[in-house]
Order: sequence, then C-alpha cells, then structure tokens
Amino acid sequence: MQRITIAPSQINDNYISLTPEQHHYLTRVLRLQTDGQFQAIDGTGQLYLCEIAAANAQIIQLITPLVGELPPPITLICALPKGNNFDDIVRACTELGVMTILPAISDRTLLVPSPQKYQRWCKIAQEATEQSERLTSPTVAEPRALQRILSELPDRSYKYLCEARGEHPHLLTCLQSSQLIDLPIIIAIGPEGGWTPAEIQLALTHNFQLVSLGRQILRTITAPIVALSIVTAAIEQILVPKS
Amino acid sequence: MQRITIAPSQINDNYISLTPEQHHYLTRVLRLQTDGQFQAIDGTGQLYLCEIAAANAQIIQLITPLVGELPPPITLICALPKGNNFDDIVRACTELGVMTILPAISDRTLLVPSPQKYQRWCKIAQEATEQSERLTSPTVAEPRALQRILSELPDRSYKYLCEARGEHPHLLTCLQSSQLIDLPIIIAIGPEGGWTPAEIQLALTHNFQLVSLGRQILRTITAPIVALSIVTAAIEQILVPKS
Repeated sequence: MQRITIAPSQINDNYISLTPEQHHYLTRVLRLQTDGQFQAIDGTGQLYLCEIAAANAQIIQLITPLVGELPPPITLICALPKGNNFDDIVRACTELGVMTILPAISDRTLLVPSPQKYQRWCKIAQEATEQSERLTSPTVAEPRALQRILSELPDRSYKYLCEARGEHPHLLTCLQSSQLIDLPIIIAIGPEGGWTPAEIQLALTHNFQLVSLGRQILRTITAPIVALSIVTAAIEQILVPKS
Repeated sequence: MQRITIAPSQINDNYISLTPEQHHYLTRVLRLQTDGQFQAIDGTGQLYLCEIAAANAQIIQLITPLVGELPPPITLICALPKGNNFDDIVRACTELGVMTILPAISDRTLLVPSPQKYQRWCKIAQEATEQSERLTSPTVAEPRALQRILSELPDRSYKYLCEARGEHPHLLTCLQSSQLIDLPIIIAIGPEGGWTPAEIQLALTHNFQLVSLGRQILRTITAPIVALSIVTAAIEQILVPKS
C-alpha cells in the first residue's frame, strides 16, 4: 500500500488535513477515489491506515510498527563533500536507520550549500523513510560550523571520529567493546582531504574517540555509509544474540 | 602523483607502450613533458614509477605497495538492479576491496544490460581502483544467469546469501564465527523483490549460508555496500587484533 509522510500537526481528531500537494499525489498520481486507502507516517514513529474523505483523509486505524527502529539513536556528523553527493549520503544513511544528520562546515569544506540544498536533503530523508518503511524520519539539521555542532552534543554518548590513514583502532572493535545500546551513538566523518589537526584536537576535547574504518581509501560519499553499516551491524549483534 | 592503469601486456622490458588514449591523457590533459613522471598500475598488484619517453614511457622503479589488499579475495555476486545503479555498486565495492564482481541475471532481473554497460562497469572499476589507490583492479564478469555463476564457484570458500526480511543470523555474526582469512569469501545480494524461493534453494545446494544484513529495508544499490562494509570490518578485526 502507498505511504505518505505527514506532519503531526496535520492530524485533528481522526482526520488529516492534506496539503494540496499530498491531495494531488493521492488522487491524481495514485488515482485513489473517495474511500481509497493509503498509509501515513507522521515522522515520530506512528503509522496510520487512512481513507480519502473529500479534500482530507480519515484515520481508520493506528497500525503496529512493522519495522523497529534501532534502540540507541544514531547521529551522523558529516562534513559537506564537494558536489551533490550529500544527497546520496542522506538517502543511504536514512535507510540504515540514522536518527539525526548534522551537516558540518569544516576547515576543508569548500562550498557552503544554499538553503535550497538543505530543503532538498529534508525531502530526500522523508522519501527514504517511506521507501525503507521506517516510521521515524531522521532530522536533517541546517549546515553549521563543526565547532558549534560539537559544543551542542549530549555529554553522555559514544562519540567516534573517523580518520582515514590513521593508526586508530577499528570502529567495529570500539563499538564491540562498549555497552552500545545504553547511550546515543555519534559518528563524525570528515571531508575530502580529511579533518585538520585542529579539528581532531577539538574533537578530542569533546571526548571523541579516534577510529579507523579500515585500510581502504574511501570517497567522502562512501565513508558515512560504511560507518553506519558497521554501527547497525554491531547493534544488531547485541539485539539478536548469537544462536 | 597522477596514476594510470595499464595492461601487463603493455610492458616490454622497462618500457610501457602507451595507447593513444593514455598518451593523450598524460601529455595533453596532465600536460606532462618528456621526462615527466607518473605512476602506473598494471591491475595485478604492481605499481610503477614511470617517465614519459617520446611516444612511450619508461619504467623507473617498481614501487612498494602503499595500501595492502585484504588477504582473502572477496567475490560479490550481485543481481542486476533496475536502472543505472550498478555503476555505483561497482564503484563503491571497488573502493571497499572487492576482487571479483559477478553481475547475475536472476529470476526477478527485469533487463539484461547491453555490452556497452558491461564495458562501462569495467572502466568504472578501473577508475575506482586508481582513486582508492588500490593496486589490483577487480574483475567484473559479463552478466550471466545465477545458476551458471553458482555452478562455477570454488568449493572451498565461505558463501553467504543475503536475504531481506528473513530470520537468518546476521552476516557479521557468521563472519566472526569463521576463520575468515583462510578461504575466499563470496557474498550474494538479490535484486529488487529479493531472491525467489527456487534461487534460495539452489544456493543452499551450493553450500551457501543464508544471512541477514539487519532489520533495515535497504535498496538494491545500498545492500552490497553494506555487506562489503561488514566483510571488510570483520577482516580488519582479525588482521589488527584488539589492543
């Protein structure tokens, strides 16, 4: 069944006030008639079965989640890469269950993106949430300086800064030696050319642990997907004990 | 220093017969003069320091590998996805150290790609080898039926078939309970809609183990990158013991 994302504020009693765009999508693109059913997620973990009712929609049922979210919230701090590659990072990391994406302007970031780009990322996160049948949309923050991002992170969390070509312990090893599901997990991935020494020093003062993603030389677009893959695999292992 | 990929057959004594395309790239695009230096990899693990010498190039030195290849060769069997997404799979999996990519025509493969596509994948693998500073280009095979691919695999290898939404043990758990670096590793990833029951049965008769990549619902383009990320992380952990 087709699924759309709504804002919680669109719900009033058992009705959803559809935006003109949503109404057009449901009735013109999907060609749903009155009483035609679809699913709606509100981005906070609720999934509803709905029916078209004139210009709006009626909620028929709150459906039990089909796919669980991973228990510890995962935050990705990602230095903005060149070009349009951040789109792909947002899409793949949303599939992989990220809860918060913090695009960072780092010393080696070349271009600060336009507000249009930021809105595009939010839309991509929403689409990827629907496609991957997640119930919670990740939050994509507006790009900010790394320094400011680091200063606003929760103290009690597992924080890992990935550095290429370093002699650091592997992310998987670090994750597997932590309790892992008791605290939020924060992963920071650098730009083309990597983090500057000053940025690494700053991260250390914010209690980040320096980790490696292995001996491969990864593009900036591949590294976050690799890191998230390792994080989710390590969490799955804890949730589903070895048989 | 700029790097190009040559075929081993281009080397004769200490000289490399450059193709017109390579010569153009070195002298026109990179603007190297006579005696200008560049690096060449031959796709089999050798890295050479070279100098332009008239229409050809002279090998100055065989350079010690900078970045090691992972010891067990990794083979990816990947059912062809819709659209042009296989390009991205080839690129990212090359970065991640795959040695052999076997595009598979499965029951749910919709379109058999043209020979041009196949040549394009080989070119992408070569480019990604250079960019990720690997010394060995992965082999990309021509698309073949899954049945034929499975029948030609080496017997002595670790074989994992990834299935979405199954109740299988996690790939990471399976890898960590194996010796891992003593035998080749073969990972099979299905198409949109997954493997058919007949294909799963066939894989079982070829001694594949059914594994999960976790509770997330991944696109066909994301799944191979996630699987390879987990494989390389597990290998790294064995190579670099916990401190």
